[in-house]
Amino acid sequence: MYISETQLRVRYAETDQMGFVYYGNYPAYYEVGRTEALRQLGTSYHEMEKKNVMMPVIDMNVKYKKPARYDDLLTIRTTIRELPIMRMHFLYEIFNAKKELLNIGETTLVFIDMNRNRPIACPDWLTEIFKQEI
Amino acid sequence: MYISETQLRVRYAETDQMGFVYYGNYPAYYEVGRTEALRQLGTSYHEMEKKNVMMPVIDMNVKYKKPARYDDLLTIRTTIRELPIMRMHFLYEIFNAKKELLNIGETTLVFIDMNRNRPIACPDWLTEIFKQEI
Amino acid sequence: MYISETQLRVRYAETDQMGFVYYGNYPAYYEVGRTEALRQLGTSYHEMEKKNVMMPVIDMNVKYKKPARYDDLLTIRTTIRELPIMRMHFLYEIFNAKKELLNIGETTLVFIDMNRNRPIACPDWLTEIFKQEI
Amino acid sequence: MYISETQLRVRYAETDQMGFVYYGNYPAYYEVGRTEALRQLGTSYHEMEKKNVMMPVIDMNVKYKKPARYDDLLTIRTTIRELPIMRMHFLYEIFNAKKELLNIGETTLVFIDMNRNRPIACPDWLTEIFKQEI
Repeated sequence: MYISETQLRVRYAETDQMGFVYYGNYPAYYEVGRTEALRQLGTSYHEMEKKNVMMPVIDMNVKYKKPARYDDLLTIRTTIRELPIMRMHFLYEIFNAKKELLNIGETTLVFIDMNRNRPIACPDWLTEIFKQEI
Repeated sequence: MYISETQLRVRYAETDQMGFVYYGNYPAYYEVGRTEALRQLGTSYHEMEKKNVMMPVIDMNVKYKKPARYDDLLTIRTTIRELPIMRMHFLYEIFNAKKELLNIGETTLVFIDMNRNRPIACPDWLTEIFKQEI
Repeated sequence: MYISETQLRVRYAETDQMGFVYYGNYPAYYEVGRTEALRQLGTSYHEMEKKNVMMPVIDMNVKYKKPARYDDLLTIRTTIRELPIMRMHFLYEIFNAKKELLNIGETTLVFIDMNRNRPIACPDWLTEIFKQEI
Repeated sequence: MYISETQLRVRYAETDQMGFVYYGNYPAYYEVGRTEALRQLGTSYHEMEKKNVMMPVIDMNVKYKKPARYDDLLTIRTTIRELPIMRMHFLYEIFNAKKELLNIGETTLVFIDMNRNRPIACPDWLTEIFKQEI
């Protein structure tokens, strides 16, 4: 298991007329969570695409508990429960500055060989990096 | 049960560097689906907020099957399975012009009295409108 | 000169906590305006990219006069003043349903040969299409 | 004159299929620039709205020079040239990690009394804060 944390500040652009962060903006926050988790593990999604591996999302679940608001400094806690084989699962918990849990998201991603446009297992070079920490 | 369909065209703004619609843009498409479903039923979400009822999303599930691409003319089929009482559930299926199913989403929304900022049951005036069609 | 009109409805996603469309969402509306202008002229931006011509924006000016609001049905009037040679200029005027002018935008785009990643003049095949109408 | 700098990392969500940041996403980056400039000056836009002063943008100009790319760590340098009276002008320069200037933006904002929904001069309490630094 690997847990990573990163922070971001809510932009005005991300609010809606309810005065809260629009529900459809959290997937982009989850992307920030998993990007920083991969970087903290010693690789990066950018690096993966340069090595012709892309990771599209195949499913997502979100439970919205409390709203985030403009200018809130949010903490995204990203959990990778196990070493990926064919699929990689990420759990995200978003907290505000008062440490209230705002929402919980989960996504499943697959590995695609960009040259052949086909699903593959997690590449060996990536497993080597992941298995030191996860 | 009530089924509604509406169309939209994918904007360049909504693609990402994979060349597909970014996974986090579908919730906004689902919003278009439920907005048009409410309008076809004889009300509108705009009308609801003017009557001090807002409907935040409390959960969302998405299964991504195939990507949508720039300039695709998408059809969003929105299904309301049953008359809402405390919660309102929407199912969305997005199809491209070849009638391929691209993804399936589900959201649950609650009714909030905007004056008291508290959850309420579906207001009677809305139930009256809904029960003619759902 | 060529004038094209298209309509779009404001999404909740596009509002901010002021209760108006966020100022940074109009460039995407302008994109819809020029995409539909190109389609009405007999081509499409999608077609252009398939022929390895892309058109990045090199400058933009916007005058914001009145706000657009959630669920407004907007009309985007796009004007192409002259046949493009090295650069293509678009003027956008956005109106609400009361025909109030909400904002005026202008963008300049260049033609890039995607194979060589270099600026080019407007391709002949495109000039042939444009000169029938502009 | 006051110059402020802040950094942000480009999200995948913000790219488009050209492989660059979509031209319409820079206004949100400029918002981050002016938000952090106000915070560094000793106030915040959030504080201003709580005191019933909002600042809508009335015009914007952008010159796009080079593209930003996914995962780039950008620096936004925000310049306030003079103490605002009726309008507040911000200049933004965005640089990538190689210190290349990617684009230059300018926005003009006005002060609105949210209770009366009318334009006002820069409030005294804000001028007091600004004049220590600008």
